[in-house]
Amino acid sequence: MNFASDNVMGASAPVLDAVVRANAGALPAYGADEITKRVERRLAEIFERDAAVFLVSTGTAANALALATLTPPWGLCLSHEEAHVIEDEFGAPEFYASGAKLAGLPGVGAKLAAGTVADYLERLKQGRRFMPPHALSIAQATECGLVYGPGEIAALAEVCRRHGLKLHMDGARFANGLVAAGCSPAELTWKAGVDILSFGGTKNGCLAAEAVIVFERGLADTLGYRVKRGGHVLSKSRLIAAQLEGYLAEDHWLESARHANRMAARLGAGLTEVPGVRLAWPVEANEVFPILPRALDRTLKLAGAVYHTWSDRSLPAGERVGPDEVLVRLVTSFATEEGAVDRLLLAAGRGGSRAAAE
Amino acid sequence: MNFASDNVMGASAPVLDAVVRANAGALPAYGADEITKRVERRLAEIFERDAAVFLVSTGTAANALALATLTPPWGLCLSHEEAHVIEDEFGAPEFYASGAKLAGLPGVGAKLAAGTVADYLERLKQGRRFMPPHALSIAQATECGLVYGPGEIAALAEVCRRHGLKLHMDGARFANGLVAAGCSPAELTWKAGVDILSFGGTKNGCLAAEAVIVFERGLADTLGYRVKRGGHVLSKSRLIAAQLEGYLAEDHWLESARHANRMAARLGAGLTEVPGVRLAWPVEANEVFPILPRALDRTLKLAGAVYHTWSDRSLPAGERVGPDEVLVRLVTSFATEEGAVDRLLLAAGRGGSRAAAE
Amino acid sequence: MNFASDNVMGASAPVLDAVVRANAGALPAYGADEITKRVERRLAEIFERDAAVFLVSTGTAANALALATLTPPWGLCLSHEEAHVIEDEFGAPEFYASGAKLAGLPGVGAKLAAGTVADYLERLKQGRRFMPPHALSIAQATECGLVYGPGEIAALAEVCRRHGLKLHMDGARFANGLVAAGCSPAELTWKAGVDILSFGGTKNGCLAAEAVIVFERGLADTLGYRVKRGGHVLSKSRLIAAQLEGYLAEDHWLESARHANRMAARLGAGLTEVPGVRLAWPVEANEVFPILPRALDRTLKLAGAVYHTWSDRSLPAGERVGPDEVLVRLVTSFATEEGAVDRLLLAAGRGGSRAAAE
Amino acid sequence: MNFASDNVMGASAPVLDAVVRANAGALPAYGADEITKRVERRLAEIFERDAAVFLVSTGTAANALALATLTPPWGLCLSHEEAHVIEDEFGAPEFYASGAKLAGLPGVGAKLAAGTVADYLERLKQGRRFMPPHALSIAQATECGLVYGPGEIAALAEVCRRHGLKLHMDGARFANGLVAAGCSPAELTWKAGVDILSFGGTKNGCLAAEAVIVFERGLADTLGYRVKRGGHVLSKSRLIAAQLEGYLAEDHWLESARHANRMAARLGAGLTEVPGVRLAWPVEANEVFPILPRALDRTLKLAGAVYHTWSDRSLPAGERVGPDEVLVRLVTSFATEEGAVDRLLLAAGRGGSRAAAE
Repeated sequence: MNFASDNVMGASAPVLDAVVRANAGALPAYGADEITKRVERRLAEIFERDAAVFLVSTGTAANALALATLTPPWGLCLSHEEAHVIEDEFGAPEFYASGAKLAGLPGVGAKLAAGTVADYLERLKQGRRFMPPHALSIAQATECGLVYGPGEIAALAEVCRRHGLKLHMDGARFANGLVAAGCSPAELTWKAGVDILSFGGTKNGCLAAEAVIVFERGLADTLGYRVKRGGHVLSKSRLIAAQLEGYLAEDHWLESARHANRMAARLGAGLTEVPGVRLAWPVEANEVFPILPRALDRTLKLAGAVYHTWSDRSLPAGERVGPDEVLVRLVTSFATEEGAVDRLLLAAGRGGSRAAAE
Repeated sequence: MNFASDNVMGASAPVLDAVVRANAGALPAYGADEITKRVERRLAEIFERDAAVFLVSTGTAANALALATLTPPWGLCLSHEEAHVIEDEFGAPEFYASGAKLAGLPGVGAKLAAGTVADYLERLKQGRRFMPPHALSIAQATECGLVYGPGEIAALAEVCRRHGLKLHMDGARFANGLVAAGCSPAELTWKAGVDILSFGGTKNGCLAAEAVIVFERGLADTLGYRVKRGGHVLSKSRLIAAQLEGYLAEDHWLESARHANRMAARLGAGLTEVPGVRLAWPVEANEVFPILPRALDRTLKLAGAVYHTWSDRSLPAGERVGPDEVLVRLVTSFATEEGAVDRLLLAAGRGGSRAAAE
Repeated sequence: MNFASDNVMGASAPVLDAVVRANAGALPAYGADEITKRVERRLAEIFERDAAVFLVSTGTAANALALATLTPPWGLCLSHEEAHVIEDEFGAPEFYASGAKLAGLPGVGAKLAAGTVADYLERLKQGRRFMPPHALSIAQATECGLVYGPGEIAALAEVCRRHGLKLHMDGARFANGLVAAGCSPAELTWKAGVDILSFGGTKNGCLAAEAVIVFERGLADTLGYRVKRGGHVLSKSRLIAAQLEGYLAEDHWLESARHANRMAARLGAGLTEVPGVRLAWPVEANEVFPILPRALDRTLKLAGAVYHTWSDRSLPAGERVGPDEVLVRLVTSFATEEGAVDRLLLAAGRGGSRAAAE
Repeated sequence: MNFASDNVMGASAPVLDAVVRANAGALPAYGADEITKRVERRLAEIFERDAAVFLVSTGTAANALALATLTPPWGLCLSHEEAHVIEDEFGAPEFYASGAKLAGLPGVGAKLAAGTVADYLERLKQGRRFMPPHALSIAQATECGLVYGPGEIAALAEVCRRHGLKLHMDGARFANGLVAAGCSPAELTWKAGVDILSFGGTKNGCLAAEAVIVFERGLADTLGYRVKRGGHVLSKSRLIAAQLEGYLAEDHWLESARHANRMAARLGAGLTEVPGVRLAWPVEANEVFPILPRALDRTLKLAGAVYHTWSDRSLPAGERVGPDEVLVRLVTSFATEEGAVDRLLLAAGRGGSRAAAE
């Protein structure tokens, strides 16, 4: 019952097979291999347009490189105050952007509203001495598991365009967001105004594979150099490319995400039936954020459930975690088994009766 | 007949098997897994001492992180003027060290003599305005395939100690250097005065696995943070750890290096028998640097041989590449087959008779 | 009636005289001159202890250099969310600290309470992935003109000590804060736990003269190199040194600050007598922050008064700026004449009677 | 007899007077004052074209800011291997350019020939992995006192244009070079192909005043932000502006430079008459580089002469400093008196007879 994160499992079978298959024979190094080329073409197909693609091994690298490309060292990059790029990357964006500043804005469920961003930018520009804003970064899904729909993204992009900002999407859980949004990859990104996407593979079944996708090639001019001097070009570049080839083949990636989301929905629905439990935010992708009585939290842990407590900074208005409660996060993945979900629900005391009846 | 580099092949079988084996089941992320722990213990055993170990996916990252740890942003790091850290890493050391400067010194075969380093430091300190020197970086093997013996390293380390510098070894081809030097890993590193080692696995049979080994733990205090903000901590950290576990098991790594060196020796010996061909530097590890008549170079390429031309900056005194000649590099690896070596020699016209006779 | 800032006037007479006097003759460059030595001794005398002193020409340089000395590139520096180092220095601290992060905390009047800092640090350390906090920076006086007393500083320093942070004081208006606090320079700084002080001269009568004072010499080891590579070592170092010599001679600096504070007190007292006007924060140093009816604001500007509007983020609980009001800042300096204060008050309609009666 | 440098004296009288004159009254801060505007107009007049101008207080800041503007963090900036930007600025260019690399090329008298630069760039681009070259920086006058004529600069600029590099001139001694070259400021800079000029005032009679002059405004887009986050915008910006106003008025700057050059010529001519003394390089601006017998060096120092020994790396072919000799640098300035020159020559034993006869 490990719900700690979607990075505690290894690779899915198709991804691992692709790595094994790609191992044989001599191939040019540093990204000049054919597998890399094929992955680039596959991504172009999936996103319905030509784009510059850079393969790296971590989401932190993908995000930091993307933000550095959009924000000069003296510039400002906006994002939610609880965003992964602000809270969890140990200053990687600031490092790659040579000292640029990340400004955090509030929003329920770690989601930014277009109005919040617009207000911030207008107030900023009334000041006398400010660092110029250059980019907005949003996470798909957010740190609280919410999903931006194409309309919401378009509204944010419109604010960006008005103020001269570029729009980055941290898609560490892009696949989960995509199947939740129920639109096409293009509709969720460049058609809605996203300029650069961190396209995550690791959390959804790869071992270490992320792609920085730059929809407008002009923006990518400097990125090749940035990746190199970050030490992020694998000499045996087939390693990442093969993972993504396996990941993207025959909609395996979408299937994996659908499964993870289904498991989260099942988990969330089950937990709301447990007395004393409520969800901090709705389950939209593959994360569930219940507010648990402390006693239940202890029970679950004793039963072997693994998960993390979570920040309550972005709760909806009116909601709060009581002194005898704890807000936690449960993450499902391509590898989560229905049985594990049900065992946790059972341990939580959700209708032993109902579970039995099913 | 691909002799372009030791990074054109995938993983060796034991390494790939280890990756496949490590794939199953849930494991803590970000280096807290057991495989990582086991690799750390195995390295401690191999190097006969406790050390701080950081696993990363590229040699550039390993070197840049190591040099940044030893050199403050306003400091100087010495190395050979043709060193990989100066010539081939696109400024990664300068990036990770926030603007520190690399100073290149001359030396035959890309090898630094203790006297050269001592003279440089003494002259430097006679100046009025200089950046303080903090580190020396040497490559094992060098860019021209030469190997530093323990005595040579100790002499360099002694100069370092006298002037307050730390000593880094770029061991992208550490295993090849080690089996050539014929001593223990400890004797070739910390016992001779090396403070930090970039321990390479990729070129000798891994897919993407390098370890920064800090022999004195005190030096490693900041390295964890540096690795994180460089985006070099894999969430599914088992990926690199498993490769190294397979690599280091049952002396597989040493066997691979011995094989590569044997193939290079065979290639070098054969080439010296070809009329008009001579070696720029002796073959000590797994690289061969013949000076070829241009006609022969064309013949070999037509025959399908793949390799790169090389710089003639560090030729021995008196040697030069003539106008009708070309200096090239041929690299062998764990995967080089004797047959490929012999086919190249045959194409080079080395005793068709002799090759036949064998 | 220019109350825009305390940097709109040139130098005070004793400072200018000192510059002229110091101009004659040959002197060693780059800080090796005798005037610099004398200033260092004078500061040691004033602060009652040996300290490392670095003279620079701007407050931004002083602050950025100090914070970079205390905070490694992957570290966190706390300060008030409206602090000059966060809001007004265009990323200079992040630049000098090679990408470190500034975290802004709330507090009325841009002043930080020890409890706020302690709570923040405890919450931070409960997280799983955070940049390590290394420094706290407070401004004396604050952006809203408030003054930290020795007790308040000691409380903050105690929190710092408990959590391993160093304490920096941005003393752009140190003299104004000092005469307001009514204690000795030592009591307001190192005796209360301040590690590094940006000692400002420019706003209080110099042309361009600030000193970074490091009370514990061990902390200053790297600062010399930082100043040099920031391009902040004047070759004709006498220029800054002479200003500070004139500034510090015969308590001229204290007299200037007392005058400025007196003018601010007079201005503040007068404004509170104007109908519809109230002060956002009490006048403690040389800045006055009235909330004005918009009509009065227009009247004053038509009458030739120069000043800036101000941020209302740090208003006391319960206070707010109404839709027909505006919050502004009026700054007095060594050069502010009583007549100018009274002319502004007259224009504001404060007791024409009373002003006449005086 | 202080010939240590042209920065050992204070300001010239017209410069100091201008500072005193500019001190009175309120002026907008941060460069919005009228004196700054007037200096910008005056420089446009002198250089016969519109240009973006940034006033800073040190030559290191001017150079580092200029090079960072021309060279991205992953780029290469070429200059002479003994250039001030490489040898004497403690990594300031690397700091401001966030880790860019300076590559040093050889050349007699610290002067670069167009052919040397062209050869370097062609060889560089034959390599497989190189940082892209973006800028060339030349010093006027060079570290060995030589002056680039307009034709030499145009030849270098032509190489730059062919390879996509921008051309920077470090004009710490621009005035001395200009009066030596005997052409107009425009002819020595943008008309010959210079893109950015560090226009030095400090060494020629200012206290601390340099201007970064960007001839093509498009290149200056980011420079304002760079200056700010470097902490190089003086709040009382009149201080630097006033110096330059005094400096540039009525050709005072040219007169000062002519005087300094005359003194150097006199000194050089006199020294060549001293037995055993020869000049390492011809005297072209305000620096003299004699090779002295060690005995004479001791004699001069005993007589009170102050000067520095110098590097012999860029001696002309065939020249060398013997074991009983020493290469030194003597610098003259606006403040050097003929009497001091003659006293030094007398001490050197140059025709006591001839000196008497004059």
